[in-house]
Amino acid sequence: MTATVDLNSDMGEGYGRWSLGDDAALLDIVTSANIACGFHAGDPDVMAQTMRLAVEKGVGIGAHPGFPDLQGFGRRRMHLPGESLANAIRYQVGAASAMARAAGGQLRHLKLHGALSNMASEDAALARLCYAAALEVEPDLVIMVLAATAMEVVVREMGCPYAAEIFADRAYEDDATLVDRAKAGAVIHDPAHAAARMVEMVRAGAIIADSGKRIPTRIDTICLHGDTPEAVAIAREVRSALEGAGITVTRF
Amino acid sequence: MTATVDLNSDMGEGYGRWSLGDDAALLDIVTSANIACGFHAGDPDVMAQTMRLAVEKGVGIGAHPGFPDLQGFGRRRMHLPGESLANAIRYQVGAASAMARAAGGQLRHLKLHGALSNMASEDAALARLCYAAALEVEPDLVIMVLAATAMEVVVREMGCPYAAEIFADRAYEDDATLVDRAKAGAVIHDPAHAAARMVEMVRAGAIIADSGKRIPTRIDTICLHGDTPEAVAIAREVRSALEGAGITVTRF
Amino acid sequence: MTATVDLNSDMGEGYGRWSLGDDAALLDIVTSANIACGFHAGDPDVMAQTMRLAVEKGVGIGAHPGFPDLQGFGRRRMHLPGESLANAIRYQVGAASAMARAAGGQLRHLKLHGALSNMASEDAALARLCYAAALEVEPDLVIMVLAATAMEVVVREMGCPYAAEIFADRAYEDDATLVDRAKAGAVIHDPAHAAARMVEMVRAGAIIADSGKRIPTRIDTICLHGDTPEAVAIAREVRSALEGAGITVTRF
Amino acid sequence: MTATVDLNSDMGEGYGRWSLGDDAALLDIVTSANIACGFHAGDPDVMAQTMRLAVEKGVGIGAHPGFPDLQGFGRRRMHLPGESLANAIRYQVGAASAMARAAGGQLRHLKLHGALSNMASEDAALARLCYAAALEVEPDLVIMVLAATAMEVVVREMGCPYAAEIFADRAYEDDATLVDRAKAGAVIHDPAHAAARMVEMVRAGAIIADSGKRIPTRIDTICLHGDTPEAVAIAREVRSALEGAGITVTRF
Repeated sequence: MTATVDLNSDMGEGYGRWSLGDDAALLDIVTSANIACGFHAGDPDVMAQTMRLAVEKGVGIGAHPGFPDLQGFGRRRMHLPGESLANAIRYQVGAASAMARAAGGQLRHLKLHGALSNMASEDAALARLCYAAALEVEPDLVIMVLAATAMEVVVREMGCPYAAEIFADRAYEDDATLVDRAKAGAVIHDPAHAAARMVEMVRAGAIIADSGKRIPTRIDTICLHGDTPEAVAIAREVRSALEGAGITVTRF
Repeated sequence: MTATVDLNSDMGEGYGRWSLGDDAALLDIVTSANIACGFHAGDPDVMAQTMRLAVEKGVGIGAHPGFPDLQGFGRRRMHLPGESLANAIRYQVGAASAMARAAGGQLRHLKLHGALSNMASEDAALARLCYAAALEVEPDLVIMVLAATAMEVVVREMGCPYAAEIFADRAYEDDATLVDRAKAGAVIHDPAHAAARMVEMVRAGAIIADSGKRIPTRIDTICLHGDTPEAVAIAREVRSALEGAGITVTRF
Repeated sequence: MTATVDLNSDMGEGYGRWSLGDDAALLDIVTSANIACGFHAGDPDVMAQTMRLAVEKGVGIGAHPGFPDLQGFGRRRMHLPGESLANAIRYQVGAASAMARAAGGQLRHLKLHGALSNMASEDAALARLCYAAALEVEPDLVIMVLAATAMEVVVREMGCPYAAEIFADRAYEDDATLVDRAKAGAVIHDPAHAAARMVEMVRAGAIIADSGKRIPTRIDTICLHGDTPEAVAIAREVRSALEGAGITVTRF
Repeated sequence: MTATVDLNSDMGEGYGRWSLGDDAALLDIVTSANIACGFHAGDPDVMAQTMRLAVEKGVGIGAHPGFPDLQGFGRRRMHLPGESLANAIRYQVGAASAMARAAGGQLRHLKLHGALSNMASEDAALARLCYAAALEVEPDLVIMVLAATAMEVVVREMGCPYAAEIFADRAYEDDATLVDRAKAGAVIHDPAHAAARMVEMVRAGAIIADSGKRIPTRIDTICLHGDTPEAVAIAREVRSALEGAGITVTRF
C-alpha cells in the first residue's frame, strides 16, 4: 500500500489580461504545480506570479511545456521535426527554471501539456525525445508520466526519477487509458465520487477501470484539474478523503 | 594601452524559414556572439544551431534579449511595466542558458538588443533593472555595456563584471554617443577606415569622436555588425588590422 | 436635447481558451459592439462567435483595432512608423469586415483600442492617419471618437460620419479628459450614480466635469465597460435610467 | 491546345526585418502573385509593399493563406477544428482583400499555402471547407487548384471559377501527384529542362509524368517557385520558351 501521495494541478494558464482557474485556492490544496511555460499559455509575468505563490505555499514547481500555439492552448496536434520539438522543450524548461530561481524556488519536475502529452502517451519515441531534451538542460528533474502508459515504460528504460500519475476526475478503460470524453461517465463531476475512487485506487496500488478491473501500478501523484467550475471542490474533497483514510498527502 | 580586445557580433537573428547575416563566416572572426533569444528574433532551432557553431569555434555565448516584437525586430520602443520587463529578461536569459548547455557550452555574457538597448543607454534605472534581472537568474554573467554611457555607470555601481563596447562602423559625438544615422558619415562603410579607427581607439584607450576629441574609456570589446552587405569584409579587416598592430584579439 | 443615444461596449476580447467579460449579457443591453480584431485580443473564432451573436441581437458591429501585442492586451504604447500603423489598421479592418460578412452582418463603425486610442486622443496626426487608413478600405465606416477631444476635431476636418462618445463609469476633468485612474473617484462603481450622470449629460448635451463645469458636446454614444465585475449591472441601470427619462436607446 | 497560360509565384513571404526571394524580379515575369496573409509569413507592411508592386506591374493579386505558424512557415501540419480553419481563411482573405484595395488593386484569386495545401489536396472535404469560407467573404475569387487532384474535383462540384495549376520545377508520378522530394529528380534545377517540359505540357494539354504517361488536364497556370537560388533564372526561361513556342503568357 502506498502510504503517501502527491496532488498535482496544471497552473499558470493565464496569459496577459486573461486568467484561468483559481490558482490561489488550488495552491492551498495541491503539493505540485505544473506551470505553463509561455508557448501555449503562461507569459513571463504569469509564470513569475504563480511560482512565487507556489514557493510561499511550499508547493513543488514543475515545467509544463506545450506546443507553440496560443490560440489552440496547446491542444491542437502539430507535427514538428524531432529536433525542433527537442529545442522547444529545452527552451521552455530553461525559461521555467530561471523563473523558478527568480521566484526563490527551484524547478523540480516536468509534465508535458495537452496535445503534446497525448501524442507522447501514444508514441514512446516522442516521449523519450521530450524527456531527454528536458533532462539535458535540467538533469535532476522528476518526470511526471501517465501511470501504466508508454510514458512510464520510457522513463523506466531511461532510468530517471519519475512520478506516476492518475486522474481524479476521469474514468479508465481496461488498458489503463482514459475513457473517451465523448462517452457518458468519462468525466467525473461529483466530488464525493472522485474522492472515494482516489482513496480506493491509492489503497489498492492500482488503477480501477470502469469494468472493475484492477491494473496494478505505482501511484505517486493524482492530477486535479483546475479549469472547471467544480475544480476546487473536487480538489478539496479528494485531499480531505485521502487524509481521512490515513494517506499522507505530500510532495513527491 | 589595452593589449587585448574582444570582437563581438549580434547573431542568431533568423527565425524559422528566414535567415539573416552570415553567422558562419562571422563566427570565424569574432570572439563573442550575442544571440537573439526568441522574442524579437531567434527561435529555439536558430538558437541551437548558432550556439553549436559558437561552441565549435570557441566563441563566447551571450544572451541578446529584446522586446517581444517579432514584426518590429525589437526595434520599436515598447513601454512595459518594470516588473514585466524584468520577467521578460529573466525568461529569455533562462532559455538562452539552457540552449547553451544543450549545445555543449555555457552562457557567459548579456547584451541588450535594439530599442531596449537604446532605452537602457538613456535611462540608468532601466539598465539597472534589466541587468539585475539577468544576474538574478545567471549570477556569473558579464554585462556588455556601451562604453562611457549610463550603462557603464550602472554596472560600476552594481560592482558586477562587465565589458565596455565600442562600434567599428559608427561615428561618435563628443559626448560618446553615436552620431545619428540620419547624418552624413554616421555609418562607416569602408573596411579600411573602420579598421584604422579601431586600432587607433584601442591603442589610445579612448573613443575618438568625429571632432577629434578623445574620450578615455575602457575598451573591452568591439561590435561588428552582421547584417549589412559589407559586414563580413569589415569584420575581417578590423581583426586583421588589430592583429597587425600587435593587439591580441581574444575573448574577454 | 438629444432624444436618442447609442450604447457601446468593447467585446470579443477573449482569445483561444480565454474568455473575458459577459458578451452575451451585454449584447442584450448595448446597441453597438466594438469587436477586437486579433492583434491585441479576439482570434478569428472569437470574432466569428461575437459577430454572429451581435447580428442575432441587431447590435451594430464595429472594428476595434489595437497594437500587435497580445501579452499587453494592446495597452502598452508602441511606436510604429506611420505607414506600418496604417497597414496594421487596414489589415485589421479588412479582416473584421470579412468576418462580419461571414456572420451575416456588415462592418459599420471603427473605434481604436487601448494605448492606440490613448495616443490618438492626444495626437491629431496619429488619429487622422488611423481613420484615413480605415476609410481607405471601408469608406462607409462611422468613426467613434472621444467627445470633445482631438479625435473629434480630426473627424470634423475629414468630413466623415462620426459618433461622439462619453463614458458611463469615468469622471471627467474640466478639459473633457478623463480623471486619472490613480485619483479617488476616477472610476464610478455605483450603477445608480453612473446611470443618473448619463441621463444628466445626455439631457444637457454636455459632459459634466467633476467640478460641475459643463462642456457642451455632441453625445452620440455611451461607452459601457464589459470587463469589470459590476459591468453588466451598470450597463442595465444606465439603459433603464435613460429609457425611464424618455431618451430612446438606439443604434447610431 | 491551350493558346494562353498564366504564370504564378508565391510572394510577399518576408516578415518584418526578414525578406525572402526576389519579388521585384519575379513580378516582371509572372502574371499572378500569391501573397502571404500574415499567419505563416507576410506582415501587413510586406503585404502592402508586395501588392503595390503587383498593381504597378499589372500582376493579378491572390490571397495565399496558411496555418497560424510563423516559426514553421505554415509547413507543419496542424489539426484545427473545421470551423476554426474556416474562420482563419475568412480572416486572412478579408485582410488580403483590404490590403489589395489600399494598394489600388483588387483581390482576384485564392491559393492555399504549404501544409494546408498539402492536406487539402488529399482531403476533398477540407478543400471544400477552405474554398467555401473564402468565397463566402469574397464571392468572385478564382480558386487556384493543383491540376487533376481532389482540389479540382471540388471546385468543379462547387461550380466556381478556378485555375488549374502545374509546377515548372517538379516531376510528376503517373497519378498526377508530385514525385516525393526525397527521390532523385523530384525537383528540376535546370532552367532549360523546366522550360521545355512546360512548353510540352501546355501544348499537350496534359501533365507528362516521369514515366512518359500523359494525364490530360486543363492547364491554366504554371507555378514558378520564388525562394530558391535558381528561381528567377527558371522563371525567365519558362516564360521565354513559352512565348518562343507561340503560347501567350497572360493573366487568367
